[in-house]
Amino acid sequence: MSPSPDAALAYAHENRARFLEEFKELARIPSISTDPMARAEMQRAAEWLAAHMRALDLQHVTIYPTAGYPVVYGESLAAGPGKPTVLIYGHYDVQPAEPLDLWHSPAFEPEVRGEHLYARGAADMKGEVIACLKAVEALQRTSGLPVNVKFMLEGEEEIGSPSLKDFMQQHQELLDCDFALNSDSGILDADTPTLTYGLRGLAYFELRVSGPASDLHSGIFGGVVHNPAQALCELVAGMHDAQGRITLPGFYDSVRTLSDEERQELNRSPLTDSLYLQHTGAPALHGEAGFTQVERLGARPTLEVNGLLSGYTGAGAKTVLPAKAMAKISCRLVPDQDPGQVKQQMLAYLEKNAPPTITWELEMFAGAFPSITDRHNPGVRAMHRAMEETWGHPPLYHREGGSVPVVAQMQDLLQVESVLMGMAMPDDNLHAPNEKIHLPTFYRGIDLLIRYLDTLGKDQA
Amino acid sequence: MSPSPDAALAYAHENRARFLEEFKELARIPSISTDPMARAEMQRAAEWLAAHMRALDLQHVTIYPTAGYPVVYGESLAAGPGKPTVLIYGHYDVQPAEPLDLWHSPAFEPEVRGEHLYARGAADMKGEVIACLKAVEALQRTSGLPVNVKFMLEGEEEIGSPSLKDFMQQHQELLDCDFALNSDSGILDADTPTLTYGLRGLAYFELRVSGPASDLHSGIFGGVVHNPAQALCELVAGMHDAQGRITLPGFYDSVRTLSDEERQELNRSPLTDSLYLQHTGAPALHGEAGFTQVERLGARPTLEVNGLLSGYTGAGAKTVLPAKAMAKISCRLVPDQDPGQVKQQMLAYLEKNAPPTITWELEMFAGAFPSITDRHNPGVRAMHRAMEETWGHPPLYHREGGSVPVVAQMQDLLQVESVLMGMAMPDDNLHAPNEKIHLPTFYRGIDLLIRYLDTLGKDQA
Repeated sequence: MSPSPDAALAYAHENRARFLEEFKELARIPSISTDPMARAEMQRAAEWLAAHMRALDLQHVTIYPTAGYPVVYGESLAAGPGKPTVLIYGHYDVQPAEPLDLWHSPAFEPEVRGEHLYARGAADMKGEVIACLKAVEALQRTSGLPVNVKFMLEGEEEIGSPSLKDFMQQHQELLDCDFALNSDSGILDADTPTLTYGLRGLAYFELRVSGPASDLHSGIFGGVVHNPAQALCELVAGMHDAQGRITLPGFYDSVRTLSDEERQELNRSPLTDSLYLQHTGAPALHGEAGFTQVERLGARPTLEVNGLLSGYTGAGAKTVLPAKAMAKISCRLVPDQDPGQVKQQMLAYLEKNAPPTITWELEMFAGAFPSITDRHNPGVRAMHRAMEETWGHPPLYHREGGSVPVVAQMQDLLQVESVLMGMAMPDDNLHAPNEKIHLPTFYRGIDLLIRYLDTLGKDQA
Repeated sequence: MSPSPDAALAYAHENRARFLEEFKELARIPSISTDPMARAEMQRAAEWLAAHMRALDLQHVTIYPTAGYPVVYGESLAAGPGKPTVLIYGHYDVQPAEPLDLWHSPAFEPEVRGEHLYARGAADMKGEVIACLKAVEALQRTSGLPVNVKFMLEGEEEIGSPSLKDFMQQHQELLDCDFALNSDSGILDADTPTLTYGLRGLAYFELRVSGPASDLHSGIFGGVVHNPAQALCELVAGMHDAQGRITLPGFYDSVRTLSDEERQELNRSPLTDSLYLQHTGAPALHGEAGFTQVERLGARPTLEVNGLLSGYTGAGAKTVLPAKAMAKISCRLVPDQDPGQVKQQMLAYLEKNAPPTITWELEMFAGAFPSITDRHNPGVRAMHRAMEETWGHPPLYHREGGSVPVVAQMQDLLQVESVLMGMAMPDDNLHAPNEKIHLPTFYRGIDLLIRYLDTLGKDQA
């Protein structure tokens, strides 16, 4: 049996101020993977993490190049072959910070206000990466690590992890493990430890509609050609019916029906309609008829417009009839949808509905399978117990609306299931201005991770 | 009877190279009235014109300040009170040049390629302003002006002429005249002298739809709020029905029915469907069912999307659920529609169709009444004869799709009708990249204007 985690917990409590400073160091690096200009910053973030792992005396610390941004790896196998091995996944890239003018403090100058740290990436997921490193540090510096750990930190999560699959395929032995720990998930509120067992997948498209060969004068030609912005709006509007259901042909065919038992468990969520209204600031909630908010978010697929661009968008009036119009559209998918099939369904919709008065092209940027983890596997059970010890009550089982493609990829390539948790709350402005993390929950998350590793070590003793 | 215009025509022919250089000088000034940063350039254009008028020995040359950009005025009353007075209208402002990357030569570095001069404003309407000045110069420097002329050149046509109405109200005596000559119109092709008697009006709106209080993560919230870009697409899509008719309540109530005789005259246009396809480069024509292209353009109202903007529009994928979405939408109006009433109809449509899951606001940027000139007035008849002399065959009577608000305003405030002609052809890329003017038609236009002023002088002798 491993020693008690008390020394590690005490160490973590004593070092909170330093942990926060190190967290801020990492958050200052604008590691925006969607921005082709940020290559140097991506490298800087990878090097910061590698240096940090070396300082923790991890072994085989390596920045593995990929076709895109590198994967940072480090391990400690000191617990020995009798102990389980946990593969700790994380990503060091972040979303773009635009629109910049809506941030109250600059996105890459982390600032503590009240109980929160504000920075792009604070909650998604530099905070969680730091928490994992710090839990390992606390155990390393006190009682020793009770299990073997392997870190695999990628730089392309926000662009759909295009290189990670190859990396995992090429390093199956290196990544051999019993469970994966993935903290790129969330917590419903500070008092509700949340164990995520389902994740939505993603199919992200750009639809480009073209009409006239170049922009035209809307007086001289308005009336005889199909305005591509109008045509785009018609196509997008038709993608939902009046009940909020998605009209792509066959879209719901492979969606798993929710059992009554699962619906009941999901609807234990503390997130009431009024909390959703408060978190979003929307004038009213809206979604697919016949489902609660929790079901709509976790267990039902969606189709969202992520961007629109056409014609003149500056100040005032310009009477242009634009030559083209663009929409970014993404679907969140649930088991057992397949992003490749959804692309075919989108193409079928467009082939059926696009008029001959315009031309169109569809590009798919990112696809990710949805996933579900067995709620009874030993890694999940250990997290359940660690959460119960840390909060004093058992966790809520949750299906997450976001996508973490690596979870499905790990099931497929490494045959391991992921235990999903995180410290990001629904109102932490992920992917939006003023992203933040709740610092008391960040510190509690470090405690939880210490207890989790400790519990896992005891289980297998 | 005035002397023959032969000397003036010969002068104009001899000086074509210099006229072109002066045209280019004016075209080099980026007098973009929609751009608040272009104030100094607007002033520079006004001063260039005033200096040019002074060099032609025009009298009372004045740059009149207005609440917006100045009006440049100059006159010659030397023909005397027995001769008619023509008020020559023009505008020295131009549209923005965006998208800049589609221009083959810079928008404000005029370049002759083949028979065309390429520059922003070449055809709309610095070319026509120069042609009017040069026709006056040719007569001034040879046989003398056979009529009285007054120039009124404004700087706000491209933003809906917000200050010109006040200017005309305050200077009714100064502007007293028998006809207005307005060359802010077009010619259907180089061999078809075109006398425009109808102009569409305009009602230009910006519709802003808001949903959540800030941009959200489309995974965490996708499914429970109405995406404002989706809602905007739904609203815009619903503004036309399947027959291409506009659905704003009451929109067609005050549209004049075309008589069979007028339909017949309009459909003499040389612009065939295949020419429209060629000029626009669209894959197919599209418009209101039951009308020909010429009718759709000149005698039927339209609703166009001029711009769309929402969410993430950069490269690649960003899974944002945007907080807001914007569309610029403008209606071209025909007699007897009223832009103020159209705003009420748009508001009524939005009140009826906007869902409670979003909020919206509508701003109107510009409004202009449609207009029709009596085809039998003496100013129109003189232009008919001058065109017949210049081309060897009579002109086509045309209803123009574009808007020239000043024509309706002059009818209202000065009780004068405008004679409308111009040198811009349908494929001259007005308001679009690579705007151009056909130089042989520009020179012929100077000849036409010389003959027109000469004919007017003889008529009233």
